[in-house]
Amino acid sequence: MPANQPDLVADLLAGKHRALARAITKIEDRNDGYRDIVSALYPHTGQADVIGITGSPGSGKSTLVDKLASQYRERGLTVGVIAVDPSSPFTGGAVLGDRIRMASTATDMDVFFRSMSARGSLGGLSTATADAVKALDAFGKDKVIIETVGAGQNEVDIVKTADTVAVLVPPSSGDDVQMLKAGILEIGDVFVVNKADLDGANKTVTELRNMLDLRDPDDDTDWSPEITETVAERGTGVTDLLDVFDAHTTWLDESGRRTEKRRTRYAEELRTLLRADANEVLEAELADRGGVDELVARIDSGATTPYEVAADVLDPIRDALRED
Amino acid sequence: MPANQPDLVADLLAGKHRALARAITKIEDRNDGYRDIVSALYPHTGQADVIGITGSPGSGKSTLVDKLASQYRERGLTVGVIAVDPSSPFTGGAVLGDRIRMASTATDMDVFFRSMSARGSLGGLSTATADAVKALDAFGKDKVIIETVGAGQNEVDIVKTADTVAVLVPPSSGDDVQMLKAGILEIGDVFVVNKADLDGANKTVTELRNMLDLRDPDDDTDWSPEITETVAERGTGVTDLLDVFDAHTTWLDESGRRTEKRRTRYAEELRTLLRADANEVLEAELADRGGVDELVARIDSGATTPYEVAADVLDPIRDALRED
Repeated sequence: MPANQPDLVADLLAGKHRALARAITKIEDRNDGYRDIVSALYPHTGQADVIGITGSPGSGKSTLVDKLASQYRERGLTVGVIAVDPSSPFTGGAVLGDRIRMASTATDMDVFFRSMSARGSLGGLSTATADAVKALDAFGKDKVIIETVGAGQNEVDIVKTADTVAVLVPPSSGDDVQMLKAGILEIGDVFVVNKADLDGANKTVTELRNMLDLRDPDDDTDWSPEITETVAERGTGVTDLLDVFDAHTTWLDESGRRTEKRRTRYAEELRTLLRADANEVLEAELADRGGVDELVARIDSGATTPYEVAADVLDPIRDALRED
Repeated sequence: MPANQPDLVADLLAGKHRALARAITKIEDRNDGYRDIVSALYPHTGQADVIGITGSPGSGKSTLVDKLASQYRERGLTVGVIAVDPSSPFTGGAVLGDRIRMASTATDMDVFFRSMSARGSLGGLSTATADAVKALDAFGKDKVIIETVGAGQNEVDIVKTADTVAVLVPPSSGDDVQMLKAGILEIGDVFVVNKADLDGANKTVTELRNMLDLRDPDDDTDWSPEITETVAERGTGVTDLLDVFDAHTTWLDESGRRTEKRRTRYAEELRTLLRADANEVLEAELADRGGVDELVARIDSGATTPYEVAADVLDPIRDALRED
């Protein structure tokens, strides 16, 4: 571990926000030593409730997250927010920071806000988000909120890091509800019809309920997804939503699903990490063998084939592991 | 190579359709020995023009592909068709076979039809499709058509195996054109407004043209995507479409893009293969270490972390490769 890492970890665990911010920057940048930091934080995690909030642009996520954070603070709970935008190239939290500075929670350091963007690969972004959540968890935040734009596979992967997933649905003609991807319907524990004062909100609630009714529960002990209505801008419905989150948290604990979810997540983290690392090893090995262009030229000339190159690269690895 | 493989390869190269069918079955099933078969066929590939045809269900792909195959036969060219349905669990070609038996080309063995479905993983399906195309190419088919349903990332990966990509667009209110994923717009060399006798066809052509005009060509030597109209059921416009395919083929040869595309494809095939193989090696290694559940239990108890396990698994591999 580089000389200054133990200090950083100790400072973070001691509750210093500056150390938390630096740790997350290292995690986001995949800086030297970030792995040691995350490894050192791991044993201190597992206390926070992690809430994922996803929904299309314009569904009012930012406003709702601000209100949720304020309400948690009023209840004496500490909060961390990671806002992830896989489609945005900007980084460093400036834009989100501006938004937050205008919000009610602005001067309260116990709400720690951080934005992350698609700096690296998208697979890397969901790993980085999971690691940043661990930093907030180890720091001692009671509630960690992951806010993510959109509803694609990448967002599903990111939001799966959460214990409780809320999907924001704007009131609409109903077409949008039909377009909700199956993947999103399946991961939502709570569906929030935000801007519920707009026309079409009732229709959206009805349609959501019909779609969720089709979602056969695997068994009776399963969580039945809830639908709540909010008008985040006026704070309407936020308390009800927090009650649903609390009910879900209680269910997670009592049903044993929290442990199950955590273990599934560990298995996924492990596999994602192994694949990413193996990929780096393979790319280095290809470079060592003259580079991909050189290998492709040999394939193109008929001197070899992808299958022969794959065997060449992987057979020594198989042998090395067999000898262990 | 298993004892019977050289015969199979020799029979395939000698033009025996039964050997071709058996080889593709082995490729689809990822049977023992399929890699040796593909490796042996590799040096005999590169002569076929590979045409990818994609479009949403109901856009009339099947009918159009039948007409294209017939026309190619009338011109004295041999044809192979691989129809891929990533969303369908059925396999073995029965359903497609039935369709084909009713078509005009039914009794003509020089049109070789085969369907492939999502038997394995989807990444595996695009590799299997590429390998099946190689079998048809090595066999000596002049034209190989890949037909794939839908327009998601998997279909994009599959259709990228082709030299020339045609995207079928049904006439519509225009909303569907807006919904064409950017990925599909980018890979299409030809856009075919099929069922052009229906209302809305002109509007669809106009909207497509507007969208394609926004697609800035990188430079003047780039291919400008064409738009053609067909009524496949009546055979209208099929000759024009073949002319566009021919023009694209000529452009590929004269611009040097055919070589470039082929090399890009080899590089992708190599990387996909290496990743899939490395993944198998990693899964075997995890099993050797007591299985993922055991490792997860150790992570859960705080005895280790995913990063430590990843280092444990990959450090010996890094060392082995370094010693080479």
